[in-house]
Amino acid sequence: MAVVAVERYHHGRLLRQEGFAIVWGVLNIIGTVAFAVSGSLVAVEEQFDLLGVFILGFVTAFGGGMIRNLIVGLPVANIWHQPSLFLTATITIGIVFVLPYDWIHRWQRVVSFFDAIGLSAFAIEGATYAHHAHSTFATTLVAALMTGIGGGIIRDVLAGRKPLVFQAEVYAVWALFAGLCVGLGIAPVAPAQYALFVVVVVLRMISLHYGWHLPKKGSPGTAEHINHDV
Amino acid sequence: MAVVAVERYHHGRLLRQEGFAIVWGVLNIIGTVAFAVSGSLVAVEEQFDLLGVFILGFVTAFGGGMIRNLIVGLPVANIWHQPSLFLTATITIGIVFVLPYDWIHRWQRVVSFFDAIGLSAFAIEGATYAHHAHSTFATTLVAALMTGIGGGIIRDVLAGRKPLVFQAEVYAVWALFAGLCVGLGIAPVAPAQYALFVVVVVLRMISLHYGWHLPKKGSPGTAEHINHDV
Amino acid sequence: MAVVAVERYHHGRLLRQEGFAIVWGVLNIIGTVAFAVSGSLVAVEEQFDLLGVFILGFVTAFGGGMIRNLIVGLPVANIWHQPSLFLTATITIGIVFVLPYDWIHRWQRVVSFFDAIGLSAFAIEGATYAHHAHSTFATTLVAALMTGIGGGIIRDVLAGRKPLVFQAEVYAVWALFAGLCVGLGIAPVAPAQYALFVVVVVLRMISLHYGWHLPKKGSPGTAEHINHDV
Repeated sequence: MAVVAVERYHHGRLLRQEGFAIVWGVLNIIGTVAFAVSGSLVAVEEQFDLLGVFILGFVTAFGGGMIRNLIVGLPVANIWHQPSLFLTATITIGIVFVLPYDWIHRWQRVVSFFDAIGLSAFAIEGATYAHHAHSTFATTLVAALMTGIGGGIIRDVLAGRKPLVFQAEVYAVWALFAGLCVGLGIAPVAPAQYALFVVVVVLRMISLHYGWHLPKKGSPGTAEHINHDV
Repeated sequence: MAVVAVERYHHGRLLRQEGFAIVWGVLNIIGTVAFAVSGSLVAVEEQFDLLGVFILGFVTAFGGGMIRNLIVGLPVANIWHQPSLFLTATITIGIVFVLPYDWIHRWQRVVSFFDAIGLSAFAIEGATYAHHAHSTFATTLVAALMTGIGGGIIRDVLAGRKPLVFQAEVYAVWALFAGLCVGLGIAPVAPAQYALFVVVVVLRMISLHYGWHLPKKGSPGTAEHINHDV
Repeated sequence: MAVVAVERYHHGRLLRQEGFAIVWGVLNIIGTVAFAVSGSLVAVEEQFDLLGVFILGFVTAFGGGMIRNLIVGLPVANIWHQPSLFLTATITIGIVFVLPYDWIHRWQRVVSFFDAIGLSAFAIEGATYAHHAHSTFATTLVAALMTGIGGGIIRDVLAGRKPLVFQAEVYAVWALFAGLCVGLGIAPVAPAQYALFVVVVVLRMISLHYGWHLPKKGSPGTAEHINHDV
């Protein structure tokens, strides 16, 4: 009887874990699509050729995870164990290259929403990686930050632009916020992490909608920490 | 008797292997010369000082191998076990710094040919590294690509330029092609790899001669995959 | 009796070692302050926001050590084991962000002196790391160089600037000089390293004061190796 109960328990737990894995998998795919779109669009804007468009798309989608692994001390080559994400990125970039530029721009709101999902999922995932690798609190924060924004930074550097994330909008802060929650043990496992995920996505969309940005030195916004100028 | 035969066999095989190693060694030296020239010339054009010229030369020659090792999961420090290549690069960069700029430019055809040799040798070598490290197929492709073009990308980023390889000419495609052949097991060992090496060099020189380039989005070249505009 | 003597000896040695560790610790803090100031000031000049200022400050302070670890083959994550330096950098960058830009500029001489201390301490430390990790001579040189200048290179690339160290002043040469002395075994342990430390700081301040720079190709300065044009 006990054995059956245990088995049932384990079976249930396994199912739940599988469920979690599927949900994260889906979120990862959505995020990868958004990041690949963002990278390949920048390449198109810079008049890069087919190869440049693909490389920038890939780098934006996977560069953050690479930098995180490098900084946290995990093998960088780990990022190769996600063939479905590579396929997702390849197809996405191919579509971006083929579709008229205007069409994609018209979908900007959808892409922004996908991007918020990617930011949230990647940051939480990155922080959890670092947290489970028994990193220090600072490492967990940096892991969340870099998984969320590292790809975009490499994208901008390769495109000869100053990293957007250093200049505009409240973006990276939400990655740090996710890292903070994971690092403090507020969202250690899947159910709480889902809540955190939704909170980060909502915060990102709100900050985008109201055009929040971080203060700059010398600007009137220095006094307050986040100011609204819609 | 059998022992003698085996010894003779091994001796012959050893000699052949040594022969292969020497050939690859020579190709590596030629490639290193070309990549070091390319890096130090860009530095001279950007009015960098003596140190900047040396660093850009070194980075262009060895940066691709570093990125490859990083991405594939090999120790980055492995690149230090090639003192003869370091010496080659040092002497090359010194010559570039001392010789009049015009002279080197007049040899541009020779440098281009050397560069094609470097691209081919480095890409095949990079792919073989990854392949033997039991990497996935995608990793082998990326290893070939990054060994071939990684140094040039770092060079351009450090020089404040947009990476040339993303914008002009059919260059990286041949590195990918080399990776494809190695990854599919078409050229697993030395003799077949020599043939592959020659093919890649010839393809690169043809594409350079006819000014092939990859399609860009929005340009008339989008429809066909490679278009000639001589 | 002998035991007591040995204990006394060990005790004295321990005290001395602790003393060395404290001195290096203080020099590291001074260097971290200078590098964090330099990074965050560049970010302020580029009109980056609060997050950009912090990231550039951190990257400048710790990026050199990261690149060194990566190149030498030490775990990049090692840099996380210095919480006091992180705190130092955080406070420094916060002060830079809050204080008027003019004030900090007025202290430029102090910052330059701190920076010379950082350059010297980081280069010697980097070279010693590599030397103790049984690296080759070339690796020790590169480790000294990259620990000294790597952070500044990442800073400039992220700010969309051409790396200052490739263009102006005699700066990196002193890092190389420190690496040379450590690599040749001239300054293997702490007392000799202190002397080396002071020499490098003095050389840097002299070269800054007299406006020395390295030769550029095509410029009249090509003939001589270091020319003074005060």
